[in-house]
Amino acid sequence: MNGGESLVRTLVGGGINVCFANPGTSEMHFVAALDRVDGMRCVLGLFEGVVTGAADGYFRMSENPAATLLHLGPGYANGAANIHNANKASSGMINIVGDHATYHRQYDAPLTSDIETLVRPNSHWVKTSPNAMSVAADGAAAIVAARTPPGQIATLILPADTAWNDGSGPVPVPAAPKREPAPAAAIEDCAKALRSGEPCMLLLTGRALREDGLALAGQICAKTGAKLMAQGSNARTHRGRGRVFLERVPYVVDQALGVLGGLKHIILVGARMPVAFFAYPNKPSLLHPEDCRPHVLCQLDEEPIGALEALAQAVGATGTPAPVVNDPRPELATGKIEPMALGRSLGALLPENAIVVDEAVTTGRGFFAPTKAAAPHDWLSNMGGSIGLGMPLATGAAVACPDRKVVCLEGDGSGMYTLQALWTQAREGLDVTTLVFSNRTYQILKGELANVGAGNPGRKALDMLDLGNPDLDWVGLAKAMGVPGAKVTTMEEFNRRCAEGLGSSGPYLIEVVL
Amino acid sequence: MNGGESLVRTLVGGGINVCFANPGTSEMHFVAALDRVDGMRCVLGLFEGVVTGAADGYFRMSENPAATLLHLGPGYANGAANIHNANKASSGMINIVGDHATYHRQYDAPLTSDIETLVRPNSHWVKTSPNAMSVAADGAAAIVAARTPPGQIATLILPADTAWNDGSGPVPVPAAPKREPAPAAAIEDCAKALRSGEPCMLLLTGRALREDGLALAGQICAKTGAKLMAQGSNARTHRGRGRVFLERVPYVVDQALGVLGGLKHIILVGARMPVAFFAYPNKPSLLHPEDCRPHVLCQLDEEPIGALEALAQAVGATGTPAPVVNDPRPELATGKIEPMALGRSLGALLPENAIVVDEAVTTGRGFFAPTKAAAPHDWLSNMGGSIGLGMPLATGAAVACPDRKVVCLEGDGSGMYTLQALWTQAREGLDVTTLVFSNRTYQILKGELANVGAGNPGRKALDMLDLGNPDLDWVGLAKAMGVPGAKVTTMEEFNRRCAEGLGSSGPYLIEVVL
Repeated sequence: MNGGESLVRTLVGGGINVCFANPGTSEMHFVAALDRVDGMRCVLGLFEGVVTGAADGYFRMSENPAATLLHLGPGYANGAANIHNANKASSGMINIVGDHATYHRQYDAPLTSDIETLVRPNSHWVKTSPNAMSVAADGAAAIVAARTPPGQIATLILPADTAWNDGSGPVPVPAAPKREPAPAAAIEDCAKALRSGEPCMLLLTGRALREDGLALAGQICAKTGAKLMAQGSNARTHRGRGRVFLERVPYVVDQALGVLGGLKHIILVGARMPVAFFAYPNKPSLLHPEDCRPHVLCQLDEEPIGALEALAQAVGATGTPAPVVNDPRPELATGKIEPMALGRSLGALLPENAIVVDEAVTTGRGFFAPTKAAAPHDWLSNMGGSIGLGMPLATGAAVACPDRKVVCLEGDGSGMYTLQALWTQAREGLDVTTLVFSNRTYQILKGELANVGAGNPGRKALDMLDLGNPDLDWVGLAKAMGVPGAKVTTMEEFNRRCAEGLGSSGPYLIEVVL
Repeated sequence: MNGGESLVRTLVGGGINVCFANPGTSEMHFVAALDRVDGMRCVLGLFEGVVTGAADGYFRMSENPAATLLHLGPGYANGAANIHNANKASSGMINIVGDHATYHRQYDAPLTSDIETLVRPNSHWVKTSPNAMSVAADGAAAIVAARTPPGQIATLILPADTAWNDGSGPVPVPAAPKREPAPAAAIEDCAKALRSGEPCMLLLTGRALREDGLALAGQICAKTGAKLMAQGSNARTHRGRGRVFLERVPYVVDQALGVLGGLKHIILVGARMPVAFFAYPNKPSLLHPEDCRPHVLCQLDEEPIGALEALAQAVGATGTPAPVVNDPRPELATGKIEPMALGRSLGALLPENAIVVDEAVTTGRGFFAPTKAAAPHDWLSNMGGSIGLGMPLATGAAVACPDRKVVCLEGDGSGMYTLQALWTQAREGLDVTTLVFSNRTYQILKGELANVGAGNPGRKALDMLDLGNPDLDWVGLAKAMGVPGAKVTTMEEFNRRCAEGLGSSGPYLIEVVL
């Protein structure tokens, strides 16, 4: 059995069952091994940013890493922006990057590059397999690394001859480390802050944003009067009717300063103290008041539920009812298309157990409030800020959860980065309804130009921020990749087409003209 | 004057007049400065791979670097594959990569990344500007680096506050180093090899592939009986009627071994000894016979014309007529679409002075012979092997040469990587006719699977190599981005549509169904 097959069998034996792939010559023995081994679903992406963003979405929903298969340094580089995003979301993934045969690298053939240097900034674990006998064991180590809490990026570089020479056969994969409980002193410190009578906030991210964590945080805040918020963006949040609602720290600095103003204590549940997404002249980078103190309840890689339980107990909140959302489902909005109307209709239409992928950027900033009382759903955000994640993330989430509807909220500027994801959705018949908010501009940058004090844009600056001339035809793009769709210009059309997309199975795209 | 404007004025003053851009918040002061400074054409790409590939095409045709404007580490990463290609083509470019304000980086906001490490593998020159007073001087140094022969990648990292704080004003840009002449001893060594009577070959790349270099090489070979070839891929080759014709070292290892078999001397004119693009089990990496010796006439960064003149003189070839192509223009091919027929029709239809961008991969491998007697033209290849270069390269070449027709030969698999280039072509009204060879497969990989001895592919492996299910509609994709086009299924249709595209001005796309 060659090294390639030894690796594939190790992956499958270790419970890695999906490989998002865009292979090349140096990966052909790995690809050939896939034919001989059952238990690995292979999903082709026509661009590597699709592959890596899908692996991120897959991990967020399945809590198990997928493998990616990438073609040397440039193939990795094409996927690197979404690996950056996955890294910031603490998603686990196992990148298998082919390389030239060990003896061939010295000749500097065209595709030669310094892969290890390239991958290091976004990988927790990196190894170049030295030979075919080592590949399976290296793969097992990569799995353990990827599963190490809260989830890590493991990158295994596979010279072609380590795949085609005789390998070791599969090796067993050891268990990954478990999450540690938060230290007792941390719980006591946080309880003391909550009991101080001074203004407090619980700031959550990570696993604490699932139903059980939210309920505990809700009890604690109901009992103590502390504020409850989530980080500005989060890998996965349980939301909707019957669950505790929480807002996010706003993106806009002045809004964030307003929300955090007056606080004396922030209790960090996996979260970090809020900082501005970007720096702006004469505005602070740190968003909390100067005399506000951080209290770490648990780190992101520690177990938050136990920590919240202990904290609830320490402040006597155990019997307190959590303030869950009981409002009626919102009504469909009508008339002119505008962000709040879209939020309301979305809240009305979201099916039970939907997975919402949010890369709506400016259009979607206010969607949290109007979707508060929607049917229970998961909300996935872009945590690394590199646009082009949405449609790939939706693709991976749909692969992980074939029985759930995925709703992808996408900006037109962001969507164009990785539009090839639509083809993968068509090929795999994935149940994704994509809403492209077509404002025909990098709208966020028009605001940012003012925020950084760069003055009123002239013609040349505006041309750099403007997606019009010519307008993109998103329905045409989708159709050309096998995804049906419709363009809408009123809320009535939106409601009808959105219901149509959500009611069908398989991919569908709606271009929402703003 | 702030740092951003100081930099823009330095660039313009230093003769940098085109900026391919995909900016974000951290680059807004640079963008705003563009409004206040004349002389910089800004071209927006909707994905960074378009931006960097365009800069490569611009350099190859104008021999002057363009600037690129990229958004932090992930923005750079999205453009990195085509920077890899530009690096291998020795194209000069000045990458301006925004970063967080110097004081903001410590807070690890979402878009924070280790940009210097990321850019180093593909940059000859890297600097992070420490403050606004330094930016203009750093920009001047980047220009010099980019112009250093044969052309280099310079990457200037620009923290946001170095753009918005008070800068130095523009600084003058010193002249870049000139190409050195080849050493006399090198010419004598090569002349001796040519006079030995043993089988010799002249292997050319770089500037030697322009009309004057080809004529001199043609004289030398006519006089001495040496073979004449070009590297497997080359940044820019002068071709067509009235010029000396040369073939390339084949991609397929066995063919290359055949072509190079029996040689005792290879005279390297900017070129390196040929190596296999990939390694294959039981095949050599080095393609020349064991007893064949290399002789460096000139390095890639040295002056090849003077070296070839001196060599011609040394072997007494000065008066010898160069064997230029005098064949009649080929006739249009008819009937079934197949690679050689496409090559013949292309040879018949290419307009005078066209720029051919070749990322046709498998379909185009045999195009050199049938286009030998086409009207004089330039031929640009992908030298780094990372697919997704073609349409961006064509975009940049068209910006550099608005009076010449650009013909882009593109594989469907390669084209999907950076299809956003079509939108830029539409917006800028660029005169590019794109031929997408739609074989609905990564055809090259089917061959490679066999070449690496991975056996016959089964269903799962084939699915990873297959672009069908669903078929891509290239005409639909182009139309949705503002580029008209047509699909053709016979050579008669091809001839008609190709003439239509070449006869129009502005972008046009033909999907050639194979």
